[in-house]
Amino acid sequence: MSIVAQSVQTAENLAIQPPIEEYFFEGAEKLLEIWFSSSKSNEISGSLRNIPRNEIDLMLDVARCKILHSKHNEAIDSYVLSESSLFISDNRVILKTCGSTRLLAALPHIIQLALKFAQLDQIESVYYSRKNFLRPDLQPNLHRNFDAEVEYLDQFFDGQGHAYCLGSLKQDRWYLYTFHRQNSTSGGDKIGVKKPADHTLEILMSDLDEEVLHKFTKDFAVDGRDCFLRAGIDKCIPAGADVHDELFDPCGYSMNAYMNETDQYATIHVTPEKEFSFASFETNQDLVCLYAQTRKVLQCFRPGKILLTVFANDVSAKGKDAQQQLWDRELPGYRRTNVQFVRLETETLVYAHFIKKSTNDVSSDEDDGERSD
Amino acid sequence: MSIVAQSVQTAENLAIQPPIEEYFFEGAEKLLEIWFSSSKSNEISGSLRNIPRNEIDLMLDVARCKILHSKHNEAIDSYVLSESSLFISDNRVILKTCGSTRLLAALPHIIQLALKFAQLDQIESVYYSRKNFLRPDLQPNLHRNFDAEVEYLDQFFDGQGHAYCLGSLKQDRWYLYTFHRQNSTSGGDKIGVKKPADHTLEILMSDLDEEVLHKFTKDFAVDGRDCFLRAGIDKCIPAGADVHDELFDPCGYSMNAYMNETDQYATIHVTPEKEFSFASFETNQDLVCLYAQTRKVLQCFRPGKILLTVFANDVSAKGKDAQQQLWDRELPGYRRTNVQFVRLETETLVYAHFIKKSTNDVSSDEDDGERSD
Repeated sequence: MSIVAQSVQTAENLAIQPPIEEYFFEGAEKLLEIWFSSSKSNEISGSLRNIPRNEIDLMLDVARCKILHSKHNEAIDSYVLSESSLFISDNRVILKTCGSTRLLAALPHIIQLALKFAQLDQIESVYYSRKNFLRPDLQPNLHRNFDAEVEYLDQFFDGQGHAYCLGSLKQDRWYLYTFHRQNSTSGGDKIGVKKPADHTLEILMSDLDEEVLHKFTKDFAVDGRDCFLRAGIDKCIPAGADVHDELFDPCGYSMNAYMNETDQYATIHVTPEKEFSFASFETNQDLVCLYAQTRKVLQCFRPGKILLTVFANDVSAKGKDAQQQLWDRELPGYRRTNVQFVRLETETLVYAHFIKKSTNDVSSDEDDGERSD
Repeated sequence: MSIVAQSVQTAENLAIQPPIEEYFFEGAEKLLEIWFSSSKSNEISGSLRNIPRNEIDLMLDVARCKILHSKHNEAIDSYVLSESSLFISDNRVILKTCGSTRLLAALPHIIQLALKFAQLDQIESVYYSRKNFLRPDLQPNLHRNFDAEVEYLDQFFDGQGHAYCLGSLKQDRWYLYTFHRQNSTSGGDKIGVKKPADHTLEILMSDLDEEVLHKFTKDFAVDGRDCFLRAGIDKCIPAGADVHDELFDPCGYSMNAYMNETDQYATIHVTPEKEFSFASFETNQDLVCLYAQTRKVLQCFRPGKILLTVFANDVSAKGKDAQQQLWDRELPGYRRTNVQFVRLETETLVYAHFIKKSTNDVSSDEDDGERSD
């Protein structure tokens, strides 16, 4: 029977049934980080943490997600969302949303809230990034392709931002839009102010080990706390961190953590469906060596594919060390398919992509010993 | 008068005249470098230099360009083309074509010629690269966008190539498709064979100084040789190189050079029309420090914008040194807007983009002294 005849017959058999759309969830997040400042240097500006909760809720409505719970210390407000996470510090907002959320639609609202409630009228720097989507066709128009995202973002930054695609265009890749205000006085460029070290490690993992996936379901754990301990998430974050997390029904996991009385955070999100499994880890913590940190996360999730980025400003020894290690050596058990080092306006960035070695390959691994912190 | 009314009136005035298409020439080249080998390691394979001239002419017909003149030493055949250059060594072809040529259409012909006349039945590695075109709409379909080029190339390499876009997607950028045969024994991986050092420096320059542009016209010079000496091209290439070049009528310049009895080459192409000025320099020479080489080229062409790439394998000290210098420091008189370091399968690559500083900026230049070789 010809393929055409076969299709016609199949179509007739199914004539009354609606087309079957298989369930899909895009685990890969859109990630927006904005640093604000005040143009009036002689006035004491407010804090983004003064933005009232109901205003944050309205902003998140626009992005199509909502707050599940929050936790706070003296430096940061941490929110676990229905789709990923939000962290607000005095002058920095980090919004990370997965699924088919409309993150960038919330950008003008965030800018308005910063002005109204924190008197922060300038954007010092912006980072918008994401992995390529598995199903871009299921994204809202604004996020369907990176060109559209860049065009949208450029409206807010007078076309002065830069846009990059890192990684091979033919496999997993990572898009970054970044803007840094010219003549910025932030980050300690003022006379006598020491620039603080800053770095961000992000690990985007796909094709997770099936045994691992099961741990992020209601079949395995009763709640977030149970999952945190029994799935080994506790080993992925520095000891003593404050944590709040959520185990979704029937599956899926989100965790926010922050360390001591700082704005150092870590966040983990897991999409455990085998067909489109994904997990992300992100931190700016300064307590543990970022390479050791990476190894711990990989031991927990055992992904088939890894996309890894490290931003570091020039005073971040930990960030620069992690970048150099990623450049110099492979991760045990993984084949590095690409690594790129990029000098941005105020920091450097390393992008690396790894694929799990087949069991035959593993014998060729280099030093598997963990470097001490 | 409204803009609409104005347009209507203008259109009426011009009703009888055909639309005016301004003259344009795409100086930025498509660049293809292929390394061949034989799968029959116990047989002595031939040389690509055995391909008969009439077969090369037919291959170039497909690419839509032709040979103007050629010159040879014991290691390399050098051809100056109507649109750029061709170099053929025993196992390497470098074809560089500008304008609206159809370079990639010649790829299957090159592969056939290598098999038929040199018994070289394997491709060890391929590099196809180009800058973004100023007028992609004027390119043949095959070259109209990089996605189409990648799709075409993948047919020849079982989809095993890698594709990158380096630089900001919003300004000048550089596309690279690269393939390296798995389990390759070329480049000295065979026991007892020392891997030869290899590197390539390419400098793509736009918005050239007007005074410089004039030197590449028939108004200024009578022929290639005159232009070579009076435009300062002689200072851009190592002393003692063999040269053949062409000054086009009314303007435009192409030069090929090779050094001593090696396959080390240099090639320069200049599109001197002010509206779309462009010049390119490329070399694999191992005689002069590549950073000093770069400085000399920039002194000759005084471009407004520079896109620079350096490939280096791990035994090329000169290539690695140039890469490190590009990463570590700016070029005097220029602001570096982007620099990226990429680890490819068998070598590293540095991409950097520079914009000329305005006269106000120049005082902030770092060390302007030239490093000795």
